[in-house]
Amino acid sequence: MQPKKIITPRKLSGFMELPPYKQIVLDEMVDKIRKLYQSFGFMPLDTPILELSEILLAKSGGNIDKEIYNFKKGDTNICMRYDLTVPLARYVAMNSDSISFPFKRYQIGKAYRGERAQKGRFREFLQCDADIVGLEDLPLVADAECLILVNRVFDKLNLNVVNHISNRNILFGYCEDLGYKNITEDILIILDKIAKIGIDNVNFELNKLGVSQENSQKLIYLTNMCGPFDFILAKISNISNNVTFQKGISELKEISNYLNSFNLNKDTYLLDLSVIRGQNYYTGTVFEAIMPLHPEFGTICGGGRYDNLAGYYTDKKLPGVGLSIGLTRLFDLLDQNNLLPNLSPSILDLQIIPLGNTIEECLSLLNFFQRSLNCEINYENKSFKSKMKEANKKQIPYILIVGENEVHLKKYSLKDMDTGEQFSLSKEDCLNKILKK
Amino acid sequence: MQPKKIITPRKLSGFMELPPYKQIVLDEMVDKIRKLYQSFGFMPLDTPILELSEILLAKSGGNIDKEIYNFKKGDTNICMRYDLTVPLARYVAMNSDSISFPFKRYQIGKAYRGERAQKGRFREFLQCDADIVGLEDLPLVADAECLILVNRVFDKLNLNVVNHISNRNILFGYCEDLGYKNITEDILIILDKIAKIGIDNVNFELNKLGVSQENSQKLIYLTNMCGPFDFILAKISNISNNVTFQKGISELKEISNYLNSFNLNKDTYLLDLSVIRGQNYYTGTVFEAIMPLHPEFGTICGGGRYDNLAGYYTDKKLPGVGLSIGLTRLFDLLDQNNLLPNLSPSILDLQIIPLGNTIEECLSLLNFFQRSLNCEINYENKSFKSKMKEANKKQIPYILIVGENEVHLKKYSLKDMDTGEQFSLSKEDCLNKILKK
Repeated sequence: MQPKKIITPRKLSGFMELPPYKQIVLDEMVDKIRKLYQSFGFMPLDTPILELSEILLAKSGGNIDKEIYNFKKGDTNICMRYDLTVPLARYVAMNSDSISFPFKRYQIGKAYRGERAQKGRFREFLQCDADIVGLEDLPLVADAECLILVNRVFDKLNLNVVNHISNRNILFGYCEDLGYKNITEDILIILDKIAKIGIDNVNFELNKLGVSQENSQKLIYLTNMCGPFDFILAKISNISNNVTFQKGISELKEISNYLNSFNLNKDTYLLDLSVIRGQNYYTGTVFEAIMPLHPEFGTICGGGRYDNLAGYYTDKKLPGVGLSIGLTRLFDLLDQNNLLPNLSPSILDLQIIPLGNTIEECLSLLNFFQRSLNCEINYENKSFKSKMKEANKKQIPYILIVGENEVHLKKYSLKDMDTGEQFSLSKEDCLNKILKK
Repeated sequence: MQPKKIITPRKLSGFMELPPYKQIVLDEMVDKIRKLYQSFGFMPLDTPILELSEILLAKSGGNIDKEIYNFKKGDTNICMRYDLTVPLARYVAMNSDSISFPFKRYQIGKAYRGERAQKGRFREFLQCDADIVGLEDLPLVADAECLILVNRVFDKLNLNVVNHISNRNILFGYCEDLGYKNITEDILIILDKIAKIGIDNVNFELNKLGVSQENSQKLIYLTNMCGPFDFILAKISNISNNVTFQKGISELKEISNYLNSFNLNKDTYLLDLSVIRGQNYYTGTVFEAIMPLHPEFGTICGGGRYDNLAGYYTDKKLPGVGLSIGLTRLFDLLDQNNLLPNLSPSILDLQIIPLGNTIEECLSLLNFFQRSLNCEINYENKSFKSKMKEANKKQIPYILIVGENEVHLKKYSLKDMDTGEQFSLSKEDCLNKILKK
């Protein structure tokens, strides 16, 4: 049955594949995020990874971005989802009659972008999204809820994270005030690149767009504002009387009050007008969370408010606000920088090692222990010594040695692998000792 | 910004998409399976959903089954995985130098088959696999471990399941004994269809293959053997002296001893020679678990022993044994037949309802409760009455009513939605009352 030709096993590049002892750490992070989202009343949704191209690409009029994996099956054009937001929009629009609003859902699932493979970029990546979608309107306290969620989720993950918050109305209004209403989006796209291309280049690009040197300086000055909410709000509140600008100010003040009321730790969030977010569907609150000790990691969580989530699919107005954690990238960065929480290589509490012909007794013991512990029998055909060595390497906390004499006496040798102590105990006493620790 | 054309939102047919209150039940089942696998010392693996076509289709020499989703990206031929076994083989072959054997891994992930959409068939389906892979050899107690796992996992899921177990060597040896060694696989494929096409058609097909009427009857008689291990083994042990046949007998006896030693409930497994399994990579133990009260559900979990998992990718001999639960299909069947465990529509312990201008106090209370409870603020712009009605419908166990008077007194109205009782309590007393229940 052995095939003649052996094909060298390879996986696709740009796809993360962790060894199990790391995968379990990632799974634990997912678990924590999931429970945290649930604790705020968010419910799970699991949309398919495949969508009709016509639906997924509604925004671009069916044009397929070269990054999107797509194919034809029979007569059907199919795409792999590239985020979890478009499928959410499709789901909410499809089910808006049966959904009770505000619809608070989380989705932890993979998305796909076939972009050029490079370090730190993945073609398959796990997104952990939470969104609140309203019908017709959604109060600003929902934005505050998402900002609280960002704080809480990284607190649960034991990561030191600061959330940089802004409101797009500030820049919308300011551009309008300066007479650039028609080119606002273009200006925002350029301003968003300051950190990447520097002030001079931003100046140059703004000038090219028709923004005067003086106004360019004003815009760059404004987007450079970053600090505690009260301090920055006091500095900028009177910069412009533009209605949209003042709407941004008042929304930021309201959100600031909510975060104060919740008593959110002030070290964990800032007002930062340089936060713009690329996606032009954001219409108010925007935020990007970073790790202050590792700014080079960039944005590890981002989100904001969109006034109309599903405009391509329904006439109903569905405003929303949400956050998204790119967990594959974050995990990779933490791993590369040795910042992962304890990589405990063993999920076992106990390993049973048979000595001599005792496998049947070991199975009976497995039944006994397995109801309370994570437990396995090491039935490998190896020497006792090499089994003990491997158990040590795997950091298994307890080993039960079951020799023929032990079977006879109904007392088993329990070895505490931390201390090296060994005890001769009944199975009940073994269990108690392990559970006590 | 509203686009002119609205595209009617649709999802692809053949893809399950559950409403959140059902999704949470599926997620809980996944959690139980995961923890059960872990409790036996299995570690998680998460291979990519996409694989190189050349690798995934090694078995068929690169020929693409029409059921397999595949596409080309740049110069790369890519397939979506159709099971979790081939990716496991690829992973183990790729990493055989760093893996410590026996390699016990579980993988809970989606697989894809673009087959014709029909009731009960899904194009995207969640598989819950656990496998043990050895290097060079793997003792038969590993097979017993997988059989124990089947029992335990459905016990955890509170499902009444019976595992039908056989060993392919019985039929391999018997066919050899009857002089049909060269057409054994063909005979097995036909015998596997008895339940579907009936005895007469099996007889007809076997005759067409060159099997005499007499031998056809013998084969059908043998595969009809089903019952307790001891009883069936006593009946069949002397049917043939063929070496392979007797190997099957002795393996079944050994496994029976192991299951006895573990004290596995005898109501939960049978020796059933009609279990053949379609895939021709099985070489010894095979099993199919069914729900005896719902035989129409068919096989809800299956698996077996394969002598050489990764022969297409490596010269190393990697024998394995494993099980696979098709959870999407099982969940759908349970749902259709109202057999799902409690569909509790609320994950919340408490909902806070502001009355009047008390949202800031509510946020402070959210901070207090949220550390111990699943809790949210209902900030909808609706009447108090309709909020209470909805909370009742959602089966939220407790409601905290926060009016301006309550804020002043620092005593809040806690309503037990089960009993209808209402209490005026401090926040600490509210928390204690809820936690006690």
